[in-house]
Amino acid sequence: MKACIIAVGSELLTPFRVDTNSLAITERLNAIGYEIRMKAVLGDDVDELAKVLAAAFGTVDLIVTTGGLGPTADDITRDAIAKALALPLDLHEPIADRLRARFAERGLTMPEINRRQAMVPRTATVIENRNGSAPGLWLERGGTALLVLPGPPREMIPMLEGIIEERLSSRSGGAGLFRRVIRITGRTESDVDARAEPIYSRWLTMPVPIATTILAVSGQIELHLTASASDRRAADAALEAAVGELQAELGSVIYSVDGRPLEAVVGDLLRQAGWTIAAAESCTGGLLMSRLTDVPGSSDYVDRGVVCYSDRAKVELLDVPAALIEEHGAVSEPVARAMADGIRRVAASDVGIGITGIAGPGGGTAEKPVGTVAVAVTANDAQRVRTFRFFGGREMVKFQSAQAAMNMLRLMMLNI
Amino acid sequence: MKACIIAVGSELLTPFRVDTNSLAITERLNAIGYEIRMKAVLGDDVDELAKVLAAAFGTVDLIVTTGGLGPTADDITRDAIAKALALPLDLHEPIADRLRARFAERGLTMPEINRRQAMVPRTATVIENRNGSAPGLWLERGGTALLVLPGPPREMIPMLEGIIEERLSSRSGGAGLFRRVIRITGRTESDVDARAEPIYSRWLTMPVPIATTILAVSGQIELHLTASASDRRAADAALEAAVGELQAELGSVIYSVDGRPLEAVVGDLLRQAGWTIAAAESCTGGLLMSRLTDVPGSSDYVDRGVVCYSDRAKVELLDVPAALIEEHGAVSEPVARAMADGIRRVAASDVGIGITGIAGPGGGTAEKPVGTVAVAVTANDAQRVRTFRFFGGREMVKFQSAQAAMNMLRLMMLNI
Repeated sequence: MKACIIAVGSELLTPFRVDTNSLAITERLNAIGYEIRMKAVLGDDVDELAKVLAAAFGTVDLIVTTGGLGPTADDITRDAIAKALALPLDLHEPIADRLRARFAERGLTMPEINRRQAMVPRTATVIENRNGSAPGLWLERGGTALLVLPGPPREMIPMLEGIIEERLSSRSGGAGLFRRVIRITGRTESDVDARAEPIYSRWLTMPVPIATTILAVSGQIELHLTASASDRRAADAALEAAVGELQAELGSVIYSVDGRPLEAVVGDLLRQAGWTIAAAESCTGGLLMSRLTDVPGSSDYVDRGVVCYSDRAKVELLDVPAALIEEHGAVSEPVARAMADGIRRVAASDVGIGITGIAGPGGGTAEKPVGTVAVAVTANDAQRVRTFRFFGGREMVKFQSAQAAMNMLRLMMLNI
Repeated sequence: MKACIIAVGSELLTPFRVDTNSLAITERLNAIGYEIRMKAVLGDDVDELAKVLAAAFGTVDLIVTTGGLGPTADDITRDAIAKALALPLDLHEPIADRLRARFAERGLTMPEINRRQAMVPRTATVIENRNGSAPGLWLERGGTALLVLPGPPREMIPMLEGIIEERLSSRSGGAGLFRRVIRITGRTESDVDARAEPIYSRWLTMPVPIATTILAVSGQIELHLTASASDRRAADAALEAAVGELQAELGSVIYSVDGRPLEAVVGDLLRQAGWTIAAAESCTGGLLMSRLTDVPGSSDYVDRGVVCYSDRAKVELLDVPAALIEEHGAVSEPVARAMADGIRRVAASDVGIGITGIAGPGGGTAEKPVGTVAVAVTANDAQRVRTFRFFGGREMVKFQSAQAAMNMLRLMMLNI
């Protein structure tokens, strides 16, 4: 079943507001088998909204609108529906009575303008609003149903859930959408896709079909798998098998198959091993430590970190030999090694990490351009060190450096 | 002039992602007199996108699309444009050459699939992408221009700004919308609004009218001022006067009137004073240092930081007396003071900051609930210390703690 969501309100067309109602609607509709094919935001213009509504009838099974049901002249959803479907608007007396009663309860007389909220396109069913003044509407034309919801989430969500229970879940025929997010680091999008596409393209025609989207976020790759199945158990089984196929092909570049970020994956490995970690950061400026400590309970394994932006700090805090910095430069594998060893020694931790690089925009040279980052990981008696060359701006280089350090540790702990 | 914005990508139709690119686009188009009449999000479906594109031609002056320009089979924006306008796709050799060169730079051979990024609808002008692989496109049909941008903001925004300069600003002609963002910390939204509303409500009826929106973001307050004027000079003068009125009323709680984040404001103060800074962080886990070092050039004043999650680290790295921790608890003003003094002494820096608190979700007590954070700032011979109680989840407490520390330093440096 196909659905589209239309949010109405000129404030949603400014640079300050995004429509977030559609996320809650998407989640609930997906679970009963509706796929969202389009989302739109329109301003308070009757003609433009009427045009979009008219075009959506006949192309999707369900249209959901939010907002534009208030009492003022710029609340135009009712008028646009009437126009799109060429229906007259009738005054709905029970709603008008309820509105008057709401005002009377507060010792007020209902302003004439609020009668607008009691206008209903003929043939529409009125949905009671238990949490506000604007009633919702339900209307069918051809094969398309239109569900008209108020904008405030605390009014909109209970009304939506009621209608799902009452009308929608039985219409959709059961099949829901169930998701799995696979996260990958250390490979390019096209590299991952070249290897994954022959696998996931077959999934579309399986008994439980799975659609796959590949995404690059801050230089990291995500695969989003969406299974369409009549119940969660069938979906889970199909997703489990699909994830297994991808793991067999892509191997250890996959760090998470349940949406966990890398800091949580590494945190779990450290906790299992009973190890503690300490980090010495230069170009990442504390980002690695900050991400590690974003995980609740990380104080169990995070001991300490130092941010040594100046060379002097590297020497004083970590006993990095000044001569080593002199000889190889602060951004070099020998210095990264000395930083990792130094922080591990000072902290008496199991793991030590050293990161030194050039985040930019300044500081690059021909030999060591912006984005050059040396990372060393010392874990008990083993050590690994690598030099990366990352693309992107300062924050992107910082993020990718922290990601690379955590991934090196992950692979080391998995003996890969 | 009317515009619409279309974001392409199935991931934007899941419950996990919202399109935020359109906010940056709206702001820039508003400034040159384009009004956004509709925003839409579509999935990776050629036919559906082609249909929406075809409908938009002729109804608006400008269509902007973002995303769907990657190399994989689900990147369908190019194909949808070709279909909507019945144009063939041609291989653009200079783009293909550039793509091959980008791979070669990194010692890689371009996968065959990446040739897709070099396919161009006939009659379209190619826009160079200085920050990524997917070129943009510009195309006109009837009275409508189509601007095709890549999805990643760091590629999309520079390309948009280039096209605004080159082509769009001269086309628009009319009154533009100009904005100013005022940032405030340490006050609640209702407190700020109670004092600001009597002022900004008058601005709507001035010769250059200014509309004001108040927003709470991560516990910080922003006032967004939007002036409608025929040119930037008139808008700037009106906005300048308006900002002055607010500053007179709200005073030093305003830390920025040009949208700069607090880390940049504090960085400028440190640079002006010729001071260096070092920080000792516990519950913020390195976030303060990471934010300070997000500012390009911050290595001029950032010396070092330590993240001392364990009590042992506080003692060893900062000479915090173990007895002090024993007596007052790790989360206490005396320990925050000792951390600030300790890091300043160790680093021989001008400023030392100490932060210790309970970020949650665990670790709270009746006396010191989750969100309790002690912050000390030592600057040369002066010291300030405060205990806060922040609301919100772990990341929110971390963010607000870092914000509070920077704001205490700002006020201290301004002798407020």
